[in-house]
Amino acid sequence: MRQTFDDHADPSFGREHLPLIRAEMARQGLDGFVIPHEDEHQNEYLPDANERLAWATGFTGSAGAAVVMAESAAVFVDGRYTLQAQTQTDPELFERRDLMDGGVSAYLETSARAGQVIGYDPRLHSPDTLSPLERAASKAGAVLKPVEANPVDLAWSGSRPPQPQAGVVPHPLIYAGQESESKRGYVAAEVAKAGADIALITAPASIAWLFNVRGGDVIRSPLPLAQALVRADGSARLFLDPAKVTPELPKWLGNRVTLEAPGDLAAALAELKGLRVLIDPAQASAWYFAELEAAGAEPIRAADPCALPRAAKNPVEIEGARSAHLRDATAVARFLYWMATDAQINPPDELEVVTKLEGFREATGALKDLSFDTISGAGPNGAIVHYRATRRTNRRVQPGELFLIDSGAQYLDGTTDITRTVAIGEPSAEMRDRFTRVLKGHIALARIRFPVGTTGSALDVLARASLWMAGLDYDHGTGHGVGSYLGVHEGPQRIAKAPNTVALRPGMILSNEPGYYKTGDYGIRIENLQVVTEAAPIAGGDRDMLGFEPLTLAPIDRSLIDKALLTPDELAWLDAYHAHVAAKVAPLVEPDVARWLGEACAPL
Amino acid sequence: MRQTFDDHADPSFGREHLPLIRAEMARQGLDGFVIPHEDEHQNEYLPDANERLAWATGFTGSAGAAVVMAESAAVFVDGRYTLQAQTQTDPELFERRDLMDGGVSAYLETSARAGQVIGYDPRLHSPDTLSPLERAASKAGAVLKPVEANPVDLAWSGSRPPQPQAGVVPHPLIYAGQESESKRGYVAAEVAKAGADIALITAPASIAWLFNVRGGDVIRSPLPLAQALVRADGSARLFLDPAKVTPELPKWLGNRVTLEAPGDLAAALAELKGLRVLIDPAQASAWYFAELEAAGAEPIRAADPCALPRAAKNPVEIEGARSAHLRDATAVARFLYWMATDAQINPPDELEVVTKLEGFREATGALKDLSFDTISGAGPNGAIVHYRATRRTNRRVQPGELFLIDSGAQYLDGTTDITRTVAIGEPSAEMRDRFTRVLKGHIALARIRFPVGTTGSALDVLARASLWMAGLDYDHGTGHGVGSYLGVHEGPQRIAKAPNTVALRPGMILSNEPGYYKTGDYGIRIENLQVVTEAAPIAGGDRDMLGFEPLTLAPIDRSLIDKALLTPDELAWLDAYHAHVAAKVAPLVEPDVARWLGEACAPL
Repeated sequence: MRQTFDDHADPSFGREHLPLIRAEMARQGLDGFVIPHEDEHQNEYLPDANERLAWATGFTGSAGAAVVMAESAAVFVDGRYTLQAQTQTDPELFERRDLMDGGVSAYLETSARAGQVIGYDPRLHSPDTLSPLERAASKAGAVLKPVEANPVDLAWSGSRPPQPQAGVVPHPLIYAGQESESKRGYVAAEVAKAGADIALITAPASIAWLFNVRGGDVIRSPLPLAQALVRADGSARLFLDPAKVTPELPKWLGNRVTLEAPGDLAAALAELKGLRVLIDPAQASAWYFAELEAAGAEPIRAADPCALPRAAKNPVEIEGARSAHLRDATAVARFLYWMATDAQINPPDELEVVTKLEGFREATGALKDLSFDTISGAGPNGAIVHYRATRRTNRRVQPGELFLIDSGAQYLDGTTDITRTVAIGEPSAEMRDRFTRVLKGHIALARIRFPVGTTGSALDVLARASLWMAGLDYDHGTGHGVGSYLGVHEGPQRIAKAPNTVALRPGMILSNEPGYYKTGDYGIRIENLQVVTEAAPIAGGDRDMLGFEPLTLAPIDRSLIDKALLTPDELAWLDAYHAHVAAKVAPLVEPDVARWLGEACAPL
Repeated sequence: MRQTFDDHADPSFGREHLPLIRAEMARQGLDGFVIPHEDEHQNEYLPDANERLAWATGFTGSAGAAVVMAESAAVFVDGRYTLQAQTQTDPELFERRDLMDGGVSAYLETSARAGQVIGYDPRLHSPDTLSPLERAASKAGAVLKPVEANPVDLAWSGSRPPQPQAGVVPHPLIYAGQESESKRGYVAAEVAKAGADIALITAPASIAWLFNVRGGDVIRSPLPLAQALVRADGSARLFLDPAKVTPELPKWLGNRVTLEAPGDLAAALAELKGLRVLIDPAQASAWYFAELEAAGAEPIRAADPCALPRAAKNPVEIEGARSAHLRDATAVARFLYWMATDAQINPPDELEVVTKLEGFREATGALKDLSFDTISGAGPNGAIVHYRATRRTNRRVQPGELFLIDSGAQYLDGTTDITRTVAIGEPSAEMRDRFTRVLKGHIALARIRFPVGTTGSALDVLARASLWMAGLDYDHGTGHGVGSYLGVHEGPQRIAKAPNTVALRPGMILSNEPGYYKTGDYGIRIENLQVVTEAAPIAGGDRDMLGFEPLTLAPIDRSLIDKALLTPDELAWLDAYHAHVAAKVAPLVEPDVARWLGEACAPL
């Protein structure tokens, strides 16, 4: 088993660790300290050694923050994690607040007092995230001060796991589709366009994309933790722990990329005096900016030049994504067949479901990792948006309940992410109404054509309108970008309420995952990955349009669909999608599964 | 007649005036000069004396800019005005460029050369619009320099009309719904909340709202051009030309508002040393910021505190809007009856249509002004989004063509804005398809319920999706805010592709006006005003939702509707809307018109 069911943290963490952190704060003269979830690499999923927020508070979600003051503390999470934060943190120690809409800033503004010093670790915050905190502290008359040594790290030092040292390996051209030299040529051109002399790349996903390598430093994402300087001629310096350099790596990188130790990076930055250094203020931490400024280099603030080409997959990567999704679909079909047969007779618990699904994926022989811990929610646990089943929370599903399974796989040729909601026994009329509304939203976003230049934010309402009309909504984004054997959450594109200015481009892969959650009762989510394509011209059309092609191939539970709520266009989309699923997947699975798939995918 | 059909400007303006402007630029050592459309008050509609862009270039649209260099010049307009700018400006003199996506900045970046000095009038630009220009000039190695005297004004001095001096009159409580003292109390509280000591209000619409007064300085909008300082105790200083002070005004304003001459404003600002002055960097020009900083005051950059309460109408204003729209609907019904009868037999020209419609509005006896010059476009002229018919462009509609009429009125109790597209003779199948798609968009935006906190940008796609599915779109926003006997275009709310962070609130009035334009052939637009309301709760709904109530009451041409393209929900909306229109308007019009209205509003 790749996934474990242990509790990584609990409310005792705060009780045990807050006093240690406060002692270190006091030693440094700090009245407060900000603990973001992100680590030195602005990662979402972290190596254990960088799970500072979990160690300090008990909260283990993939996004959040805490502020520790001398007498009080608060933990900040978004709507996906509200319930989880309530069970994982101690209400006597932590006020629980909303992360969104400047939650941390608003807290600092009212909790900090004039003259106080609030510390932060400049390695963990990008300038973009720091500015609102600085403004808030200043409004309160307090100052925000970078620390030399992180009080959490000092407090944790005795028991903190070591930093990961997984080997970094070539990611062959049959998957990557473009030579690193060519990618570096593109980046060099972008550096020149921005009026810079050199680029500092700090995002691990960008390092992986740029050099066509993959690592193992972070669970669930094959990220190499490293940094790079890319010169205007496309040559580069890659700062990577020598312990991670596999024997084949130097030859793969070629003689225009030098391998250097991470400890040499500060010295390398100090040599950049007088140069204009392209650096992304949303990706790189404030520490890099401080080092560059101290060296007399000029930071040119611009988006990471790797971000857009990494997001817009090339034809080889798209073909890889199709293969990965078809392979994954055979595992998912076997799993859904089991859910439709055995599981209806002997309702499983959440851990059994995770184990079963992982087994089918393992049996493909190609599984490199899960792309995230499977969310396996029976009945009311399905209403916890980012639920992770543990032995403590495990629950056996009951007839008449819904089972929500959100899971994904890492294969060399692509990353998958799929959510299906399955009825055990007979669903209620309300469940069918809500499921069908979620499905209408999913279909609206799957079918839409949109003009070149459209952002994901502009499309978000399509997935929500049918819920809104019934007085309902969901508190998470509708679609995230997905990497190519990289992070399952990847920017810069995104489909969400929050404004995003990145126009969707052909080759971008996004999830389409509207949902509905009734606390204490059930959760519904329907998620496919879909790739942005150029839409075929329509007679009479006068604009260049884009559209989506679904990558995920799995039936949507027909017992949960209220056909009367679907328009003819929606029904036609669903029937065509199901026919496509059956045609592609049925030939690859056992006769019993294929027969069931034929029924599950028959026209409605 | 209130509307005239003369050409205000033509391409000869550029030929005659550019050399004069360049001579003044040379005298001041300027290599370039930026001419925005906006005036000292950041107005959209200007007094003739402030039509600098039209005088310099010939372009008379309500948004745009020009940059004049020594040897070249460019005029910048948005998609609504592309065609108009082509006919009104001289291609030998002006490159025509897109205003959007930083058009002026992009031009400066490539056209200015190192060492050049580009002038601007600090009275005409807000800091928010200046920053990108400054960055662009700096990238080119040029400097952007504020001028003391505007070269356009100097060149124009001989023939420039005088500044307007229309009397400022009370706007009674039966229309305003809230005492000025109470509004100033709210503003004072906002000033304190922002940590400021005093507010400087410069937007004419805010002055009108705050003091419950209306003026006549700007055509089509009863705006008083003035400025005000509002203190933390709610008392205020209003800087208003004494020539505009009507006898009843001082008593109306009360003894907590002092009237002072505009010439005293600079001295008043100079007295603010040490104070924190709330000022809106999107509304107030850079000149105010420079004066405040020179005086040793601290500008607190924050949104104009009048903007949100002005936009979210109070119950008296909403009831006024309903009355104004019902009154306007009687004029519109008579007009549409004429279009459906006489005009079908003797097809009118564009000027006849404008005259006829204005006559019906005048006959209500309550018309204070048009809310903008009527857009009356026959056939291909309807495809020019912000077309204004003149004797030169006037065109008689032909059978088989569409007529697009976008018009509105100013009444004491409210401002109206309505577009209807009417078929003359038999429309083509393509016209009916396009019209029905526009209608589907209109209905989607009229029917939607949305959670509290939703912005107009988030809703925009609802009005476009049916066009997008056919490879079509329109190059203008979907909805603008509308004032209460104030500007017909009023922020801060807006429904458009461009991100807008202002959440819609109950009482906000917005237009809903999707369209489709086939250049050289026809234009379609369907526009109602609608007010944001609290949506009635739905059984099972678990969120506080808002919705829209249509204010505009006029039939939508059924001969242009392809019923097969409408869903049952859309059809139900349309039939209910039409039934509502007939029930409200038919009792108020002549029997012939009422009979026709009954037919035009019968279920489809």
